[in-house]
Amino acid sequence: MKADLLVGNIGQLATLRGPAGPRRGPDLADAGLVAGAALAAAAGRVVAAGPADAVRRQVDLAAGARVIDAGGALVTPGYVDPHTHALFGRYRADEYALRVAGTPYVEIAASGGGIHASVSDFRERSDGEIAALSLPRLRRMIRNGSTTIELKSGYGLNLEQELRALRLIRDLDGSLPATLVPTFLGAHEIPAERREDREAYVDELCDVWLPAVAKQGIARFCDVFCEPTVFTLDESERILRSARGLGLGLKIHADEIAPGYGGAALAARLEATSAEHLIVIAEGDLDALAASGTVAVLLPATSLGLASTTFAPARKMVAAGVAVALATDFNPGSACCESMGLVLSLACSALRLDPAEALVAATHNAAWACGEGEQAGSLVPGKRADLLVHDAADLRELPYHMGFASVDRVLIAGREICFTESELRDRPRPV
Amino acid sequence: MKADLLVGNIGQLATLRGPAGPRRGPDLADAGLVAGAALAAAAGRVVAAGPADAVRRQVDLAAGARVIDAGGALVTPGYVDPHTHALFGRYRADEYALRVAGTPYVEIAASGGGIHASVSDFRERSDGEIAALSLPRLRRMIRNGSTTIELKSGYGLNLEQELRALRLIRDLDGSLPATLVPTFLGAHEIPAERREDREAYVDELCDVWLPAVAKQGIARFCDVFCEPTVFTLDESERILRSARGLGLGLKIHADEIAPGYGGAALAARLEATSAEHLIVIAEGDLDALAASGTVAVLLPATSLGLASTTFAPARKMVAAGVAVALATDFNPGSACCESMGLVLSLACSALRLDPAEALVAATHNAAWACGEGEQAGSLVPGKRADLLVHDAADLRELPYHMGFASVDRVLIAGREICFTESELRDRPRPV
Repeated sequence: MKADLLVGNIGQLATLRGPAGPRRGPDLADAGLVAGAALAAAAGRVVAAGPADAVRRQVDLAAGARVIDAGGALVTPGYVDPHTHALFGRYRADEYALRVAGTPYVEIAASGGGIHASVSDFRERSDGEIAALSLPRLRRMIRNGSTTIELKSGYGLNLEQELRALRLIRDLDGSLPATLVPTFLGAHEIPAERREDREAYVDELCDVWLPAVAKQGIARFCDVFCEPTVFTLDESERILRSARGLGLGLKIHADEIAPGYGGAALAARLEATSAEHLIVIAEGDLDALAASGTVAVLLPATSLGLASTTFAPARKMVAAGVAVALATDFNPGSACCESMGLVLSLACSALRLDPAEALVAATHNAAWACGEGEQAGSLVPGKRADLLVHDAADLRELPYHMGFASVDRVLIAGREICFTESELRDRPRPV
Repeated sequence: MKADLLVGNIGQLATLRGPAGPRRGPDLADAGLVAGAALAAAAGRVVAAGPADAVRRQVDLAAGARVIDAGGALVTPGYVDPHTHALFGRYRADEYALRVAGTPYVEIAASGGGIHASVSDFRERSDGEIAALSLPRLRRMIRNGSTTIELKSGYGLNLEQELRALRLIRDLDGSLPATLVPTFLGAHEIPAERREDREAYVDELCDVWLPAVAKQGIARFCDVFCEPTVFTLDESERILRSARGLGLGLKIHADEIAPGYGGAALAARLEATSAEHLIVIAEGDLDALAASGTVAVLLPATSLGLASTTFAPARKMVAAGVAVALATDFNPGSACCESMGLVLSLACSALRLDPAEALVAATHNAAWACGEGEQAGSLVPGKRADLLVHDAADLRELPYHMGFASVDRVLIAGREICFTESELRDRPRPV
């Protein structure tokens, strides 16, 4: 086989090779480790990965091929972040201080904060402003190792603004090297001006917005924030069934706030691709989730951002055979976090995932949670050569090293990604 | 007044001006904020800080003075990290995985892990190796905003090796721009070879080691790990009284593991500079700690590193009038964390400090907790011009932005500190 990229001298390679589909139970801990490894790619795709000798025998390096010496370091697939709201305007650090002081989210939202604050802000800003604010944040996510990132709309909350959000995500996808997966989240909240009119809002969402989104082909998933105080189970089901009828994949914000409300059970019943948050899932719903194959996307940084020490019952999920994935939930409210590295630390320390389980959850399973399972999340022939060379020797160092992104080099589709310091900064430095 | 440095166009300046001594109660939340500010320094010391107009009127800029445009950003004092074990050899990520799986620390230590593992490793490595391993870690601490860092010995545990550790800390202080505060921690653990002989170990520590350390003048503090399973209250008191007699300041690892053991009460009785950890302090000891003026140094990253969700009762401490400070506890076992930024996030989300309280605890109070209160921790005339220009507009963004060091520029004694990427890396990149 011809190769135009060889990454050699890999001390520990986490291939995550194995059967297709999300991992569960004991398989969740199988990162497919190879010591003394190499990886070869051609035209942006992996062609061989494994013991260095075997890889060398399998491939012919093309003239001018790039050769990277990993220096004995750990190499993993790029992180896949399957749940973010990374397209937004201003930060909401003021609300964080209120939460720390004990003000409940529902109260903050009722007084014009929360999602409503980001909706007003998003609607007021130009396309250029939103893009300029989002770019350094997304670049930091990439610099911290996320090579595939799901982004949701949901700060527009009217047809025009939701379509604008999805267009902006598409444009960002074109100007950044990472793969961005767009999700339509018109059902993020009922906007303030439609409070008296929620039935008509849901009607419109199903009958007008979703068909428009599907027709433009600018979203791969439809998501719903399913909570008794946001969209009820019935409303959520109606929206998701409409989306499915239009060919969209299904995701659902489930069982985040109201204990055992049943969003996870709904996700299982609809065989949604993923159910996300699940901090207060009913134990009785774990088996249904396992049986459906729906991926449980856990967001431990959100617990932290909510100044809470309640986390999703990850070990019970693993024991029940639920497929678990991890994401940042990067958003201006509950989780201002671009770092999958911090999520790995929280996943082990707070969710009690083993470091290998956490890595599988942040790569392979995360890819299946956002429709990229056949393209990303493991380093096996045919998949995108999205990989990280870490400033670390062993995968256990990734969660162990807290508040530190070990990522030394980021390769996406076989190309090394480098940003300047100023490209990573929110605030431009004066000249 | 003459100035050779002017930092202008500061959107929000946290001066932390106010009376000397650690802050407590409502004063803990007073970060001395000034909007539209400037700061001037001469010969590495602050000469003026406050509203830009007033600063401009007060100072004459020397010819060739450096002028930095902060671009409307937040400027704070450099972080002071008053509790670290940052001088060590190898990482212990293997033990982290065991802890996550539920193995208690005491069991890990009993099977040759824990502090013992770092002692064997430290003793086996040359001075050059220890320095080479420590340097990038300390540079990362500085890059993440720590401009004053306390470092403890305690992986030597015999006279020769403890003195070597303190000499290495002194040498690192000479080769790094930050101020390193050396602490003698011969009482970190009873080394394996002295288990049968603990009384003689404590005798030697008091009668031979401490005088040798004091004579060489290479430690400013003496610290003791006070736990029923490590050094008892009586042993701790004896060691600390010997240290005080020799002119050393007193610190104490108190009430970290055994609930209400009484290390904090001992610290209060001895009027120690600081009592550290305090996760399981007896409520009855809070008043004594408040009355003594001993600073409570809280280490929330350690709870995370121990895969625990139990944190020190910070709000009760503030309510009782205890002076609270924050530190990373950076060490290869329980807290592999170079980032005061993560500590700020944990301090707000898990300890429920207000963002301003957390900033005061991580700067002003932290400086008083390691004997640097008159030199660092606030931006007032006479103190070192140790300051951070953040990629942020408001101090609330610091803890809100999780897993992200907002620090854009680091100035120590008025000089901007820049490291190359390779200086910040643990593993050198192959050429």
